[in-house]
Amino acid sequence: MIKVAILGYGNIGKAAEQAIQKASDMELAGIYHHNDSLENIQADVVLVCTPTREIRHYANQLLAKGICTIDSFDIHTEIYSHMQALKPIAMQHGAVSIVSAGWDPGTDSIMRTIMLAMTPEGQTYTNFGPGRSMGHTVAAKAIQGVKDAVSITIPIGEGKHQRDVYIQLEEGEDLQTVQQRIISDDYFAHDPINVIAVDSVLPFDTHNHGVLIQREGVASGISDQQLSFAMTINNPALTAQIMVSCARAAIRMKASQQYGAFTTIHIPPIYFVPLDEEQAIKTLV
Amino acid sequence: MIKVAILGYGNIGKAAEQAIQKASDMELAGIYHHNDSLENIQADVVLVCTPTREIRHYANQLLAKGICTIDSFDIHTEIYSHMQALKPIAMQHGAVSIVSAGWDPGTDSIMRTIMLAMTPEGQTYTNFGPGRSMGHTVAAKAIQGVKDAVSITIPIGEGKHQRDVYIQLEEGEDLQTVQQRIISDDYFAHDPINVIAVDSVLPFDTHNHGVLIQREGVASGISDQQLSFAMTINNPALTAQIMVSCARAAIRMKASQQYGAFTTIHIPPIYFVPLDEEQAIKTLV
Repeated sequence: MIKVAILGYGNIGKAAEQAIQKASDMELAGIYHHNDSLENIQADVVLVCTPTREIRHYANQLLAKGICTIDSFDIHTEIYSHMQALKPIAMQHGAVSIVSAGWDPGTDSIMRTIMLAMTPEGQTYTNFGPGRSMGHTVAAKAIQGVKDAVSITIPIGEGKHQRDVYIQLEEGEDLQTVQQRIISDDYFAHDPINVIAVDSVLPFDTHNHGVLIQREGVASGISDQQLSFAMTINNPALTAQIMVSCARAAIRMKASQQYGAFTTIHIPPIYFVPLDEEQAIKTLV
Repeated sequence: MIKVAILGYGNIGKAAEQAIQKASDMELAGIYHHNDSLENIQADVVLVCTPTREIRHYANQLLAKGICTIDSFDIHTEIYSHMQALKPIAMQHGAVSIVSAGWDPGTDSIMRTIMLAMTPEGQTYTNFGPGRSMGHTVAAKAIQGVKDAVSITIPIGEGKHQRDVYIQLEEGEDLQTVQQRIISDDYFAHDPINVIAVDSVLPFDTHNHGVLIQREGVASGISDQQLSFAMTINNPALTAQIMVSCARAAIRMKASQQYGAFTTIHIPPIYFVPLDEEQAIKTLV
C-alpha cells in the first residue's frame, strides 16, 4: 500500500481524500493543514494542495526527508523553473517530485505532446471553459482589497480567453484601485479581463469546467489531419484525481531509481494506472 | 542525426519516407524490401513496415545487431506476447524495440491510459471509422482464393464494429468457401462481418479513417466526468508519422540505457517530440 498524505485541505485536498480512499493500492497517511509542523510526517508521498505560491516552501521540506511530492503548480510560464528548483533536492534525497500535475497543466500537456508527435507541423489551440479557474480565483482572493472572488474563464476562440473576475470588495476599498492591482498580477496579465464588483460571488461559484484542445496538422507530409480532445469535468475532483494517479507514478519512478523533479510529460503513462504491466497492455493498448 | 531505415515499402513505408525527410533530427538510412539481406544494414533504428505477421522475423534479426526497431504490430490480443518475445533479445544487445506503434494500437492506447488515470472508474468506448483497416485489408488479401480485398470498419456504437470485407475472388474460387476462410481467421473472428464479392475493390479503397474514444467516469468520487478524443486522419500517413516519432523515442530510451521492448504507454511522451526539455515544457506543458 502506498502511504499518501494530503497537505492543504481546501477544495482539492478534500477531493484528494475521496480519491485516495477509492484507490485500492493506497492508504491515507494523514491530512495536514497550512501551518502544521511536518517534522514527524510519515508518508511515501504527499499531495501538496496549497496555493501555487506556497508549494515550493513545503515541497522543499518534504523532498529533503526523501518523501515524494505531487503538486498542481499552475503558473504556466514558471513551470520549467519550478521543476528545476525542486530537481536537485529530490535527486539528492532519492525522491521524486511530479509538478504541475492537474489537468492543465497536467493531462492536457500530455494531450498536446501526443498531438505534436502525431502531426509535427500544425497548430494546437487549447480552449478552456466556460468555467471557474481555481488558480485565478485563489490569486484574485489574495489581492489586497478583495474580500471574496470568483474568476471565470471564457473561451473566445483559437485558444484565446477572456477572464471575468467577480469580486466582493473589502469595505471602504475602491474598485478602480483593486482592478489595477488584479490586472498587474502575473496571473491576469496575459488575457483580456473584466473585473466586476458584486455583492456576493456565490452565484458565480461553480466547479464545472472543461476544455477543447484542437489540432489541425500534417502527418508524413499529408495535411488536414484533425485531432481533438474534449472534456467536461468537475475541476477540483479531476485535479485531485490526477494528483493521486501521479502519486502512484512517483512511487514507480522512485522504485526504478529515476529520482528528480518531473512534469506529467516525463512520466510513462503506464505508471499512472493501478494495473500490472500485462493487465495494462491487454486492456489499454 | 538519427539514422532511420525503412523495411517494407508499401503504404506505410512510403509515408514513413516522407515523415523522415521532414524530420530535422533524422536522415534516411536506406529503404529495404521484403527479401533484401539485412546483413550490412547501417542504421540506428529501423521502421519495420512489413505485414504484422512478418514483423517478428525481421525485428529479431535487427535487434540482434543492436539496431532499434519500431513496428505497428496490430493484433491486439497478441501485443503482450509480441513485446515479451522481443524483450530479451533487445535487452541482450542494448537495443530498444517499440511495438504496436501506430494509432490503434499506439496513440489511442495512450489516450485510453490517460483517461483511466483521470477517471479510475468508468467505461471507455473506442469507435473506429468508418474507414479502411490496413491490417484487416492485408489479412484479407492473404486469404487463399482472394485476388484483392478492402476491409472497411464501421462503428455500430459503444465500441462495437462491423467489418465489410469487399473481395475480388480468384478465378474459379467459390464465395462461400472463401467467406468461411476469412471468418475463421483470428483477425476477423471478433466482430460481425459481411463478406461482399465485387468485380473490383478500387471504389472502396480509401486512406481516410478516424476514431472517437469516449469515456464517462468517476474522478475523486464525482461521477459524470466526460472525456473524448476524436480524429479524422489519413491512415498510412498517421501510422508512419507515429512510427517516426517512436524512432526518436527509441533512441532516447537507448541513450538513457532503458533497453528492452516497450509499447507506446511505456514511453515518456516528451521523448516523442523533437524539442529539448526546456522548449517542450515551455510550449507543451
